[in-house]
Amino acid sequence: MANPWATLGVDLHLEPAGSGGLRRGLTDALREAVRSGRLAGGTRLPSSRSLAADLGIARNTVAEAYADLVAEGWLTARQGSGTRVATGVPRLGPRGSGTASPARRREPGEPVHSLVPGTPDLASFPRTEWLKAARRALATAPFHALGYGDPRGRPELRTALAGYLARARGVRTGPDAIVITAGFSHALRILGPLLRARGVRSVAVESYGLDVHRGLLRDAGLAVPALPYDGLGTDPGPLDEEGAVLLTPAHQFPMGTPLHPDRRAAVVDWARRTGGLVLEDDYDGEFRYDRQPVGALQGLDPDRVVYLGTASKSLAPGLRLGWMALPPSLVEEAAAAKGQIDTCGVLDQLTLAEFLASGAYDRHVRSARLRYRRRRDALAAAVAGRAPDGPRIEVTGIAAGLHAVLRLPPGTEQSVIQAATWQGLALHGLAFHRHEEAVAEPLDALVVGYGTPPDSGWAGALEALCRVLP
Amino acid sequence: MANPWATLGVDLHLEPAGSGGLRRGLTDALREAVRSGRLAGGTRLPSSRSLAADLGIARNTVAEAYADLVAEGWLTARQGSGTRVATGVPRLGPRGSGTASPARRREPGEPVHSLVPGTPDLASFPRTEWLKAARRALATAPFHALGYGDPRGRPELRTALAGYLARARGVRTGPDAIVITAGFSHALRILGPLLRARGVRSVAVESYGLDVHRGLLRDAGLAVPALPYDGLGTDPGPLDEEGAVLLTPAHQFPMGTPLHPDRRAAVVDWARRTGGLVLEDDYDGEFRYDRQPVGALQGLDPDRVVYLGTASKSLAPGLRLGWMALPPSLVEEAAAAKGQIDTCGVLDQLTLAEFLASGAYDRHVRSARLRYRRRRDALAAAVAGRAPDGPRIEVTGIAAGLHAVLRLPPGTEQSVIQAATWQGLALHGLAFHRHEEAVAEPLDALVVGYGTPPDSGWAGALEALCRVLP
Repeated sequence: MANPWATLGVDLHLEPAGSGGLRRGLTDALREAVRSGRLAGGTRLPSSRSLAADLGIARNTVAEAYADLVAEGWLTARQGSGTRVATGVPRLGPRGSGTASPARRREPGEPVHSLVPGTPDLASFPRTEWLKAARRALATAPFHALGYGDPRGRPELRTALAGYLARARGVRTGPDAIVITAGFSHALRILGPLLRARGVRSVAVESYGLDVHRGLLRDAGLAVPALPYDGLGTDPGPLDEEGAVLLTPAHQFPMGTPLHPDRRAAVVDWARRTGGLVLEDDYDGEFRYDRQPVGALQGLDPDRVVYLGTASKSLAPGLRLGWMALPPSLVEEAAAAKGQIDTCGVLDQLTLAEFLASGAYDRHVRSARLRYRRRRDALAAAVAGRAPDGPRIEVTGIAAGLHAVLRLPPGTEQSVIQAATWQGLALHGLAFHRHEEAVAEPLDALVVGYGTPPDSGWAGALEALCRVLP
Repeated sequence: MANPWATLGVDLHLEPAGSGGLRRGLTDALREAVRSGRLAGGTRLPSSRSLAADLGIARNTVAEAYADLVAEGWLTARQGSGTRVATGVPRLGPRGSGTASPARRREPGEPVHSLVPGTPDLASFPRTEWLKAARRALATAPFHALGYGDPRGRPELRTALAGYLARARGVRTGPDAIVITAGFSHALRILGPLLRARGVRSVAVESYGLDVHRGLLRDAGLAVPALPYDGLGTDPGPLDEEGAVLLTPAHQFPMGTPLHPDRRAAVVDWARRTGGLVLEDDYDGEFRYDRQPVGALQGLDPDRVVYLGTASKSLAPGLRLGWMALPPSLVEEAAAAKGQIDTCGVLDQLTLAEFLASGAYDRHVRSARLRYRRRRDALAAAVAGRAPDGPRIEVTGIAAGLHAVLRLPPGTEQSVIQAATWQGLALHGLAFHRHEEAVAEPLDALVVGYGTPPDSGWAGALEALCRVLP
C-alpha cells in the first residue's frame, strides 16, 4: 500500500473512525502533529483534494478538519497561499505545557498573549453549527424579511429570545417588549438619550465597571455618580436621588460577586418607590459554575427593570448582537430612538433565532461552560502552585463568568502590569476598571480574562501570567 | 410504476434533467402548478423527504426547490406548519397575466402591491450563492476576526471593495480609506456630526431627494438649503456659501437624470476653490441600461469627495451594509465617530468580501440588471399601451436604476395616489420627495419603484398601476 500521507510528508496517528468520526480523528491527528512540531510552522498543507485522495476519504472531511484547525488557530488559510501551519504555535514542552505564542502573526509591539477580560474564546465559535442554522434560516425566511424592517428587530429572534430568556435567566418578557441591538454599548447609546429626554439627570453606576459605559451615559448628558462597593456587592443605599441605576447584579463586573439578595430587594424597592429605572447588565449570566444560577433581577419587576443581554460573551462580539427586554411603557420610545438605521443585519438575526430554537445555543453554552470551568480550575491551581515561598494570591470572583480577580499584595498592581507588558502579556489591573470617584476600599488586583485566549494559546498565556506574579 | 406524485396529489410536468438540472426542473414544475392554480393557496406540501422518495431523487434537491420557491414568494415555510402554497398568489389569467395579490399574508389595511421606490426585488436575493460565500468566508477567517475589530470594518471587505469600486465605478481609493457602515443613512449619521464639528453650518441638498436624509443632517445641527433643479440636473451655481453638498450625481434620486458633465466639473471646482466637501450618494450606480455607466464623481477628486455606496439596492437592505470611500484626511475622524459600537456584524462583512472576490457579486448584478431592464421595458410598454384615448404619460429617468418617473397631467398626482391607495397599491408621488423649499418647476408625477415587487407580484402590481393612471 502506498504511504497514505504521501502529500503531507509526515505520518499521522489516525484512530479508526470512532464516535467522533473521521473528521474528528483527522482534526485531532493534525492538531497533534502541529503541537508536537512534526508539522513545522509555515508548512504549506496539501490541498484538501490531494490529502483526501491519499487517505481515501471524502474531500469535505479534510476541508472541514482544516476549517476547524484554522478556527482554533493551529492553521492559517489565506486566499492564494493555501492552508499553512500557523507560525508561533506553542510546542509541547517536556511536561506537556505550551510555551510559545499563539497562532496569529503579530504586529511589532502587539502582545503575544492576552488575558484582557471581555472577550470569549473566539476560536471556539461554533462555525459549523452557525452555518447550519444560517442555511435553515435562509431556507424558510420570507423574502420581505430581507427588507427594511421593524426597528425592534426580526420577530423570529424576539420570539426565540423571549422563550430562552424566560427559561435560562428567569426574565419575564414577550417578543413585543424586546428590542434587538448591536450589543450592550449600542443599547446604552439608545437608553442614555431616552432617559435624558424623560428628565433623568443622573444614572448611578457601580464603583467598579467599564469606563466606556460611563462614557456613553456622559455623552447623553447624564451624571454617573458611583455607588459604594463592599463585601455584599454594590450598596444601593444612596440611590434615593437618582433617576436610574446601571448594575451587573448576577456577576459584578469585574469583581465577580453576585448582588446580595437583600440588596436586590432594596434596588427593586427603590425603583418602585421613586419611579426609578434599573438597567440590568447581564453580560455573562449563562456562565455559572459552582451553584444555582443567579436569576435576572428583571424577574422581580419587569416594569421597572430593563434587562440587557448580549451574544458577545456567549458567542462572539463580532456578531454585534444584543437585546433589551424593556418595560412595556418604554418599548415604543426605544424602538423610535433606535430607528431603522441602526437595525442589525437580518441574516444574523434570523440565524441566531434558528440557533436558539434548535437548541444549538444551549448546547454551545453547555460545552463552553465546561471548557471555561476547566480553565478557571487550571488558573486557580497554577496560581496556588506557582512558588511555595511567594506571597499568597487569592483568586476570587470565580463562581461564574469568563474572568477572575487575583488579589495582589498592596502596592504591586502597577509593577505586575508593567512586567506583563514587557513579557508580551496584555493584562488589566483592577485600577483600570475603577470609577474615578469609587467608594470602595483600595485594592491591588488583576482582572484575568481566562476566557480570552484560544485553546492553542491558553497554556502559554497562563505560564506567562505565572511568571509575572509576585 | 406507482404515481410518482403520490404525496403531492397533483401531477407535475417535470422535464428530463437538462442544463438546469433536476432542481431547476422541479422548481419550474412546482411554480407552474401554483401559478396555474393546480396547487391551491394554503395547500400543505409533502415533506421534502416524502416527495424525494416518491420521485426517486435526492432529498436535498427537493429541499432546495422548496427554498427557492419560498424565496420567490410562491410557497411559505413556517416552523411547525411545514411548507405551504402561499395564499393570494396571482393566477394566470386567460392572457397569461397575473391578476391577484402577491404571496404574503397581509395585515388588514396593508397594501396588496407596492411600487414604492427604494427597495430591490428581495425575492431575488441570491440565497444559495450567499450561503456558499458565507461557508467559504467562515472556513478561512482567523478566529480573531470574530472579536471587537477595527471601527473601519473588516480589512477583507475593505480590500475587496477598493478593487470592485475602482473597476465598476471608477472610484479612486484604497482599503485604508474605506469605512464600512450599516447603510447610507448610518453613514450620514456619522458624517453629519463630523462636518458640524469641523465648523460646517450648512449642507446643500437637491430639490428632490429623501426627507429622511435631510432629517439626519438637521439632527446634526446643519441647515439643508435646496439647490435648483432643471433639465440638466441639479444646479451647483448657488453653492458658494455652503460647507458641503449632498448629491446623487450618477442618477438623481428620484428624477433619474445624471448630473450634466459641466455641472460635475463645476461641483469639483467649487470644492477645490472653497475647501468644500461633496457627499456623493451612489445608491444604484450598478444599474444602468442604455449607455455607458456614469462613473463616480469621486474619481475626479478623491480628496474632496466622500463616495457613499450601499448593498441595500444591489443585494438587500436587510444586510445593513454600506461603505464610504473617504478623503484620507477624514478617515481617522470618521472611524472614531463610528467607533466599535457601530461596527457591523463581521460575518456578513466577511461574506460580502468573499462574494465580491469570487465574482458572485458581479454575476448577481448582471442578472439583476437584466431582470430589472425587462421590467422597465414592460412598464414603459404597459403605460404607453394602456388606453388609446387617455392623456399621454411620459416615462422618464429610465436609463438606470430601479425606479422611473411617470409625468402626469397637471393637478392629477394627488388623486392618482389616492386611487392607488383605495386599490391596495402603495405608490409615491413626486411631491413626497420634494424639498420643502425646492427650487424647481412644479411637476405632477409618480415615482414608480419597478424593482420593488417579487417576480410573483410584478404583473399584478403593473396591472394595478395601469388601472389608476388617468
